[in-house]
Amino acid sequence: MDVRAAVAFEPNKPLSIETVHLEGPKEGEVLVENKATGICHTDAFVLSGRDPEGKFPAIFGHEGAGVVQDVGPGVKDVKPGDHVIPLYVPECRECEYCLNPKTNLCQAIRETQGQGVMPDGTSRFSLKDGSMVHHFMGTSTFSNYTVLPEIAVAKIREDAPFDKVCYVGCGVTTGIGAVVNTAKMEPGARVIVFGLGGIGLNVIQGARMVGARQIVGVDINNDKKAWGEKFGMTDFVNPNEIDGDLTKYLVELTKGGGDYTFECVGSTALMRQALESAHKGWGMSVIVGVAGAGEEVSTRPVQMVTGRHWTGTAFGGARGRTDVPKIVDWYMEGLIDIDTMITKVMPFENINEGFEMMERGEGIRTVLTY
Amino acid sequence: MDVRAAVAFEPNKPLSIETVHLEGPKEGEVLVENKATGICHTDAFVLSGRDPEGKFPAIFGHEGAGVVQDVGPGVKDVKPGDHVIPLYVPECRECEYCLNPKTNLCQAIRETQGQGVMPDGTSRFSLKDGSMVHHFMGTSTFSNYTVLPEIAVAKIREDAPFDKVCYVGCGVTTGIGAVVNTAKMEPGARVIVFGLGGIGLNVIQGARMVGARQIVGVDINNDKKAWGEKFGMTDFVNPNEIDGDLTKYLVELTKGGGDYTFECVGSTALMRQALESAHKGWGMSVIVGVAGAGEEVSTRPVQMVTGRHWTGTAFGGARGRTDVPKIVDWYMEGLIDIDTMITKVMPFENINEGFEMMERGEGIRTVLTY
Repeated sequence: MDVRAAVAFEPNKPLSIETVHLEGPKEGEVLVENKATGICHTDAFVLSGRDPEGKFPAIFGHEGAGVVQDVGPGVKDVKPGDHVIPLYVPECRECEYCLNPKTNLCQAIRETQGQGVMPDGTSRFSLKDGSMVHHFMGTSTFSNYTVLPEIAVAKIREDAPFDKVCYVGCGVTTGIGAVVNTAKMEPGARVIVFGLGGIGLNVIQGARMVGARQIVGVDINNDKKAWGEKFGMTDFVNPNEIDGDLTKYLVELTKGGGDYTFECVGSTALMRQALESAHKGWGMSVIVGVAGAGEEVSTRPVQMVTGRHWTGTAFGGARGRTDVPKIVDWYMEGLIDIDTMITKVMPFENINEGFEMMERGEGIRTVLTY
Repeated sequence: MDVRAAVAFEPNKPLSIETVHLEGPKEGEVLVENKATGICHTDAFVLSGRDPEGKFPAIFGHEGAGVVQDVGPGVKDVKPGDHVIPLYVPECRECEYCLNPKTNLCQAIRETQGQGVMPDGTSRFSLKDGSMVHHFMGTSTFSNYTVLPEIAVAKIREDAPFDKVCYVGCGVTTGIGAVVNTAKMEPGARVIVFGLGGIGLNVIQGARMVGARQIVGVDINNDKKAWGEKFGMTDFVNPNEIDGDLTKYLVELTKGGGDYTFECVGSTALMRQALESAHKGWGMSVIVGVAGAGEEVSTRPVQMVTGRHWTGTAFGGARGRTDVPKIVDWYMEGLIDIDTMITKVMPFENINEGFEMMERGEGIRTVLTY
């Protein structure tokens, strides 16, 4: 079938909206009609050419929501008409990783996903001349139709609005999951969140949801104070307005350090500060941000020897097919707020404008609708 | 009273056996007659002058076992005649740290302990001319009598031999505790231990005790292969005999990486290798060794983002008064072996010979008896 997709032909060029041929779902695959998709920094990062493993031409987008239109042979768990969220971290429920309760990093289709193809090694997308277009993160939500492996879609309730819950496909789950799944935060915790973008705000509302007693937000942009407060932040710190050492300031503010600290920017300097502002004896620091290729973090080992824990999270430690429907439920039941974070909804055709807004730091999340 | 002690008058000089005046126990303190003491690398490290916080003159030693001879006012939990192990990490059971189940780092007397004095700010030790001699790690077991705060002694069973269980005062507890308390290792784990000295061997026997399925020992000294095997090591790797990358080799050997890895040397390069040879998704790397002052560890943050945990341990995460008696019981009941590790027992007067043997890497642990 012919579909309408935003194709990235080469790094650092605007996306081009094209009619692309999409082959139907093969064994274990499903055809999804995308209804809405968010634009995330990861899309911009790969489009910039800074990801050495980025593939071109490709159809980006990994934060979608839509409706199953067709299924290939052997598909058991979803059927046409089901509402779904595409998963860039699948959940096969069979691999060594899925069977280990300590991780969410299903490895079933990791290799082909990284190569921009479906598990059989080929792409379902092609241009008019027959040349292939790569999938991206196994999701390619910048297309009104896409094909995904069955294990890479989470079935959600049908009353959830696509233009809101698409955000659960990445940002919401990453932030809230970092609190719930990775940190396993207990009530009464003191928390420090570095970076109040879309991820950081979701960490904040996750911490509020599980009963944190103090939630400190750290950002160099004072406009983020009001944003943080909307989601439960209790203290705002602008590092540029602190005299002396930021770590020392944060440790005093939290009466000994954060029980949990989260780096949501991707800065290795902030990752170190996040670790070192965690509480001696038990503080856990979670790296959520993605650093540039080859960058390294450092600290003195005594930070760990005196009881701090340094870890990280991908997709918020969530097992997509199991946890994403739960987070959609939490949203529908009012436990968490997504609406306020969706600062712009625009037609899919305006996708390049959406990227420009993100680059300029306008709003929290732009969603495109088909 | 007059006591016989090995005094460190200045860095890098042999210890001098002196008659020293010891004041009796004050409020909340106990007088302990030391019966045996181990010599540990930490003693040598501070004696070398490389610890910027080392105090001189001082009476070193932190791995002892003895008998309570007198108690000061207000002491409730021990009485004369009780067999005890001095604790360089005390357990007050009242401070914020003791009341948090996530840590063992009691802070009740941390400041004065670091200054080489008792909690009231003075030393019980003095020379004939009246000048003070510092306590060390709150224990000063290189003296036939010593005074300690009540919260810094663990009462143990009376049938435990002093010249063996003194080792529980540091090395045994550090290694076994790293497995049991810090890693909380589950049965069936694959383990990698870097450095097969006294600590590493105790990590190995701790892992064996809790049912590890594979225990890889890494050391550049081939003589350590036989030592590791005595305590449950299943595979020995000499990095100098591996072609190519050690981390890659270890990951393959353990079918994906260690579920738990332990650095028991104090080398920041090894700490990085230990983290990076931990299993993607869930591997935990525990820093047990003590790095030099100011040294830093580094890695790429993706190591944590893909699910590895980096942490550390001091005194094996053990709460001394609670856990040390248990470990003595485990030894007496045959769950763990200490006898084989005590490779030399000699009179206290030969203490400088003991330090020389340790510097030369002879044997595992030398114990001095009074």
